[in-house]
Amino acid sequence: MGLIGGSMAIDLKQRGFAHHIIGVDNNPIHRKVASRKRLADEMLSLEEGVRAADLIILATPLDVIQELLPLVLDRTNGSQQVVTDTGSTKGCLVSAVAGHPNRHQYVPGHPMAGTEQSGPLAAFSGLFDNKCVILCDREQSDTSALSLTEKMYQCLNMQVIHMQSDAHDVSAAYVSHISHIASFALSSCVQEKERNEKHLLSLAGGGFTSTVRLAASDSSMWTPIFTRNSKPVLEALDAYIRHLSLFRDQIARQDSQGIHEMIRAANKIQEIIHLPVHQGS
Amino acid sequence: MGLIGGSMAIDLKQRGFAHHIIGVDNNPIHRKVASRKRLADEMLSLEEGVRAADLIILATPLDVIQELLPLVLDRTNGSQQVVTDTGSTKGCLVSAVAGHPNRHQYVPGHPMAGTEQSGPLAAFSGLFDNKCVILCDREQSDTSALSLTEKMYQCLNMQVIHMQSDAHDVSAAYVSHISHIASFALSSCVQEKERNEKHLLSLAGGGFTSTVRLAASDSSMWTPIFTRNSKPVLEALDAYIRHLSLFRDQIARQDSQGIHEMIRAANKIQEIIHLPVHQGS
Repeated sequence: MGLIGGSMAIDLKQRGFAHHIIGVDNNPIHRKVASRKRLADEMLSLEEGVRAADLIILATPLDVIQELLPLVLDRTNGSQQVVTDTGSTKGCLVSAVAGHPNRHQYVPGHPMAGTEQSGPLAAFSGLFDNKCVILCDREQSDTSALSLTEKMYQCLNMQVIHMQSDAHDVSAAYVSHISHIASFALSSCVQEKERNEKHLLSLAGGGFTSTVRLAASDSSMWTPIFTRNSKPVLEALDAYIRHLSLFRDQIARQDSQGIHEMIRAANKIQEIIHLPVHQGS
Repeated sequence: MGLIGGSMAIDLKQRGFAHHIIGVDNNPIHRKVASRKRLADEMLSLEEGVRAADLIILATPLDVIQELLPLVLDRTNGSQQVVTDTGSTKGCLVSAVAGHPNRHQYVPGHPMAGTEQSGPLAAFSGLFDNKCVILCDREQSDTSALSLTEKMYQCLNMQVIHMQSDAHDVSAAYVSHISHIASFALSSCVQEKERNEKHLLSLAGGGFTSTVRLAASDSSMWTPIFTRNSKPVLEALDAYIRHLSLFRDQIARQDSQGIHEMIRAANKIQEIIHLPVHQGS
């Protein structure tokens, strides 16, 4: 019932996909907030919730999903129930339930939406609108399970993309996981310098806050992603450090033409993805 | 008459600081846009503008400021005219006019505001509100010149901070210049991977676009900043790469506790600077 589960609950109920939402959260404060925000029709224990639900969405940190997923699949009956998850890395999850007799009832998913906030207080309607969701290894799920999961995400106004879990994990490392590391490292680097430089952060403008925003992200969510997706993350991070070093060397050489060309190449990202237009421009 | 000069013109006129704004721009299209947006009361040549103005604001890329500043100071008369600039690096500018007979009429400034956009079309009212401006080496400017520049920035609702130019350049490298390099390198790195990975950028969520936003920044503005502030930028960039490598090594070692602690330390940036709260949270 955090940012992801809570935001799903709001829109799936409001938009009529679900007539009854069961919330499960092991944090008593989160349970209280979720109840007060009316994110769910009732709050139950995991055991009771899994018994009663038609569609079970695991929206917890990755290590918890990995732990819960086989236990939940153990408890689902026949093809009456569908299990999906929202974890940012898929390889470790599909491995954890490979060969499980109920594997076909599970649809590995990754809605590409979120903020640097977490918990039920951060949940809001519209978080998923017009974003993408990746569903992985479709050939291993029942068509009915796949179809229910797709309908659920369509109700959240998401575009469904199918990928293999290993390709997903590499892509996620490049466009999501290293963005977070870039931001965490920038924060640490600037904080280290700030100890000796008065006024350092007085100079922080909108550019810095935009780049460092993700550094506020929750450690219990991100630590398991980095350890469980370590191979693609290390590949992406090494590539990132290599690009930074190229930039560094051109500055050290005072190579204006080289710097200019690197910036012009970097600018092309605008043609590929939609960057939010800044206020007033 | 670009993003910075144009946005200053709008608010200095609207708020009554200036009764007559003279715009100067060597780009004919920008002159046309500036006229159409009524950013200035009249558009003149540099020569004419410098002759007529009480306060001359140089708001161009850093290399152009460095070239123009001595020429403009040559043409100012007595202490009747004040010259200031908005360049992101101050050391190269104060060096360029050290010992100039009119040095005391010049106030080196750096308003910490901007977007990744540029040109007069990007100019808007309120760009500077509630941000900081750094004025450097105050002891080398006439008190009347300093006072006029301070009043001008107070009219833009900016908090005035005084620093020495060398300390400014180090701080700017850490909180502004490396943010841009981090973003340029992330863009290049992801674009390189994208050539072989279909769907890579379909996964790009709000986190990626936030971190990569600055990669749209203008090359003709940023190239001279990196070459002219190279020593502090290299120091900051090396520190940034060092922090990334620490992160990298902890992931390679699967050191969950170490990663967790680095993220928790990075999270503290929230307590030091105000991060914009994300929609809905």
